[in-house]
Amino acid sequence: MIILGIDPGTAITGFGVVESVGNKYKPINYGCLRTGPELSLDLRLKLLYQGIMEVIVKYRPVQVAVEELFFNKNARTALAVGHARGIAMLAAANSGIEVSEYTPLQVKQSVTGYGKAEKKQVQFMVKTLLSLNEIPRPDDVADALAVAICHAHWSSNRGGLLR
Amino acid sequence: MIILGIDPGTAITGFGVVESVGNKYKPINYGCLRTGPELSLDLRLKLLYQGIMEVIVKYRPVQVAVEELFFNKNARTALAVGHARGIAMLAAANSGIEVSEYTPLQVKQSVTGYGKAEKKQVQFMVKTLLSLNEIPRPDDVADALAVAICHAHWSSNRGGLLR
Repeated sequence: MIILGIDPGTAITGFGVVESVGNKYKPINYGCLRTGPELSLDLRLKLLYQGIMEVIVKYRPVQVAVEELFFNKNARTALAVGHARGIAMLAAANSGIEVSEYTPLQVKQSVTGYGKAEKKQVQFMVKTLLSLNEIPRPDDVADALAVAICHAHWSSNRGGLLR
Repeated sequence: MIILGIDPGTAITGFGVVESVGNKYKPINYGCLRTGPELSLDLRLKLLYQGIMEVIVKYRPVQVAVEELFFNKNARTALAVGHARGIAMLAAANSGIEVSEYTPLQVKQSVTGYGKAEKKQVQFMVKTLLSLNEIPRPDDVADALAVAICHAHWSSNRGGLLR
């Protein structure tokens, strides 16, 4: 099962394509989509949509996973993340792919075994679980891989897909 | 010049199509797109995108206008508006239509002449300027028409388009 994890942002959107076979996770590709601040917001969102669609068309994930937002962020940040997050979910929906949302606690729990783990610990476990030589950079990429692993974990352990 | 004003929201998105000829404004169509809470967020955003695209294809606006968000709203509201707002801007960008953003102050100023006008005053002037028999309901529709009028006002008075 191929899963696409997305950590959405207007400036940087991290993505991670992970294949899960039983309890094993294999990284297929990962990276980030960047849009420049010199562009108007609508054009940045258009580029973001195109970039996510390219990833979907290339790797044909059966599921897209995104993290729920921390609500301790301020309203300005939340609006900006919302723009990009809406685009990511639309790209999945327009491709007929289900979207699953996970809380930060669920992501940390499934990657490190501890729901309140530090960011560094999550990143270390992403590297370990995917047998990578180094921690993916920037953080957005590691976060996208983490939510993809989280989805693989929950769907294999629950025998079904979370909505 | 045909302008599409949008007041984005996941549950209700108001839209207003206004034609401006000189200093006159003519309502072409207006209404709202609704998505039910029984649907998952990705499917609601998909429906919203489809609905906005239908309006764009039908009325061929040359500009889309949206209001900037009040930042006194909380983060949860801002995220939800962000999702829908991103979709509205993407629909415009994917149709090759420029998007203009206006602050609430600019909208109120251009519709009522007073940047701190009450909501009722804005709604009354939308009705008056567009020669409608009654104030459009729900509020999202009147707000969408107001931002469309605002764009018409600024572009005709400045001889150019605001970005």
